[in-house]
Amino acid sequence: MTASGIPPTILLTCGDPAGIGPEVVVAAWASTAAHARARLRVVADAAMLADVIAACRWLPQLPIVVVEPEDPRPSTPGAILVVATRPAGRAESVPRATVTAAGGADAVLAVQTALAIERRGLAQALVTGPLHKEAIHAAGYDVPGHTELLARGCGLPDDAASMMLWLPGPDDAAPRAGLGVVHATLHESLQAAIGRLSTGRIVQAGLRLAGLLAALLGREPRIAVAALNPHGGESGLFGDEEPRIIAPAVARLAEGGLDVTGPLPADTLFLRASRGDFDGVVAMHHDQGHIPIKLLGMHRAVNVTLGLPLVRTSVAHGTAFDIVGTGAADPTSMLSAIDAAVRLVEAGVRAAAAPRA
Amino acid sequence: MTASGIPPTILLTCGDPAGIGPEVVVAAWASTAAHARARLRVVADAAMLADVIAACRWLPQLPIVVVEPEDPRPSTPGAILVVATRPAGRAESVPRATVTAAGGADAVLAVQTALAIERRGLAQALVTGPLHKEAIHAAGYDVPGHTELLARGCGLPDDAASMMLWLPGPDDAAPRAGLGVVHATLHESLQAAIGRLSTGRIVQAGLRLAGLLAALLGREPRIAVAALNPHGGESGLFGDEEPRIIAPAVARLAEGGLDVTGPLPADTLFLRASRGDFDGVVAMHHDQGHIPIKLLGMHRAVNVTLGLPLVRTSVAHGTAFDIVGTGAADPTSMLSAIDAAVRLVEAGVRAAAAPRA
Repeated sequence: MTASGIPPTILLTCGDPAGIGPEVVVAAWASTAAHARARLRVVADAAMLADVIAACRWLPQLPIVVVEPEDPRPSTPGAILVVATRPAGRAESVPRATVTAAGGADAVLAVQTALAIERRGLAQALVTGPLHKEAIHAAGYDVPGHTELLARGCGLPDDAASMMLWLPGPDDAAPRAGLGVVHATLHESLQAAIGRLSTGRIVQAGLRLAGLLAALLGREPRIAVAALNPHGGESGLFGDEEPRIIAPAVARLAEGGLDVTGPLPADTLFLRASRGDFDGVVAMHHDQGHIPIKLLGMHRAVNVTLGLPLVRTSVAHGTAFDIVGTGAADPTSMLSAIDAAVRLVEAGVRAAAAPRA
Repeated sequence: MTASGIPPTILLTCGDPAGIGPEVVVAAWASTAAHARARLRVVADAAMLADVIAACRWLPQLPIVVVEPEDPRPSTPGAILVVATRPAGRAESVPRATVTAAGGADAVLAVQTALAIERRGLAQALVTGPLHKEAIHAAGYDVPGHTELLARGCGLPDDAASMMLWLPGPDDAAPRAGLGVVHATLHESLQAAIGRLSTGRIVQAGLRLAGLLAALLGREPRIAVAALNPHGGESGLFGDEEPRIIAPAVARLAEGGLDVTGPLPADTLFLRASRGDFDGVVAMHHDQGHIPIKLLGMHRAVNVTLGLPLVRTSVAHGTAFDIVGTGAADPTSMLSAIDAAVRLVEAGVRAAAAPRA
């Protein structure tokens, strides 16, 4: 429940219908505990979803009920409520496990429909399945991915949004545990990332991380800021970014009242984080954060979007064409993404919408 | 057994006597299976070792037998054979769990004594416990660490030696599994590392890695070379080191007959390596290799020295003053280091002594 007492509406999308997205959405729908706290809907082509359920006999064989975006009924595990992207459905079904323009177009249509519903105030969060970049491009959309698609839909530039990688604790009995990672630099060469690293970027990443974690965990998070250089710079022997750029950012975050430590050597930092010493890490560059998160449990990981005026979470895996239709798709990341979205909405978060520093 | 049929002699050192080194040496001595294949000796102050055994009642309460370096007797788990660094022992015992000049001096003396015995042809490998840098410096030695100490003892420059991080497979029944990491760059700033990255350095690292792994595993290893940039450079969008520097190195290694793949995005590479897809990884910089190895099982990890004309392995952990004398010290890394040394000597390796390219 939100502060208003009305359960929030959360929209799920399947991503590319050719990928494992529809499978993990159906599996997650049947097993998530979120129905008790939110009204879930899948924004999709209803016929596509029905086809996938029929073809994948190991999935819960749930009936589909098409509803209007305004329909207030609660959701239950026993029937999938679908807000249809096309009232009449597709003329032909999209082939699975392959890149097609039709698959890319369906995926984009679902995201745009869901975003429009959210923008009208009829939903409080989006939880998205995996896109396939080539399929989007084949469909004629010149957009790198989900986040930029959503940014444009909000009238913002492509780089307005960033993300937190969120790895929930393995124990469902400990919902207040997990590890969040926000990157100070991300999709650029390592050389460029070093050049762009600044105290301001690290402070911004730390504030966003702390805001989201406070909402997810329901308490003040313990934040660690990674060093850039080996051994944390070895007292200046291996680079000066630690005293020159990173330590001042840690100091500013601490002055702002955060429980923050660093810069710490990245190798021992992530080992400590994996043991529960920290709730969140500010990583200096892409692989510094992605190597440990993938090793620690990519199948549980979730992306939480930062910098957009809406709550949006996403699975951290891809379309996985190699296991489509085999029963091997793991809905854990989708379950985590739904749970994270519910928690963020319940916490009244628009932290995800924090203005950029 | 070596090719000559005579079991090799392997010398263990305890590192700083104030750290957990003596504890893990005693625990490993009692439980290693290496006595059947090698003659082990501990090069140490005999009184120090006896004191530690007496003080740590959870350790096997083994008698100490002082032997000369030339003594050919086999070793057994039931009694520790010590080659004494000081015939008369120390006048006073070194306090534990603290930095002292006496501890640093004892540690350096043990390494130097062991190296001298090896140089005389009376031993075939060194297995070293953890030093404490500050203690060495307090003792008046201006040397960064073990590897440089050994390089100088061999009449080589400090930077002659490098290392492979070796993580044995978790299953003792699968001795032919594990993961080795050699770094193309190591102890320098990330900025400097990017600047120093060269095709030649990567080729050299790959050759050394492949040579050591072939000896450890008894078969041709499967090598992966990591990319430097996020997503492996994303086809040139995120940097050009992959096509310009790394791919040519992979091609040269492949031309040389190695089973080698790359450059691969580092985050998925290490996930795949952790699942057994590769035996070894060439990492482009320090933390790229250390973050995953520490997460995957630092307590089992071993350092294998490269570039020196001797076989030397080492525990990958430090002196761990915080758990000295508590019974919490884990001898797994020391056991792995002994096992790796035996396997390298049995394989006739002087790959560790491969000339620098």
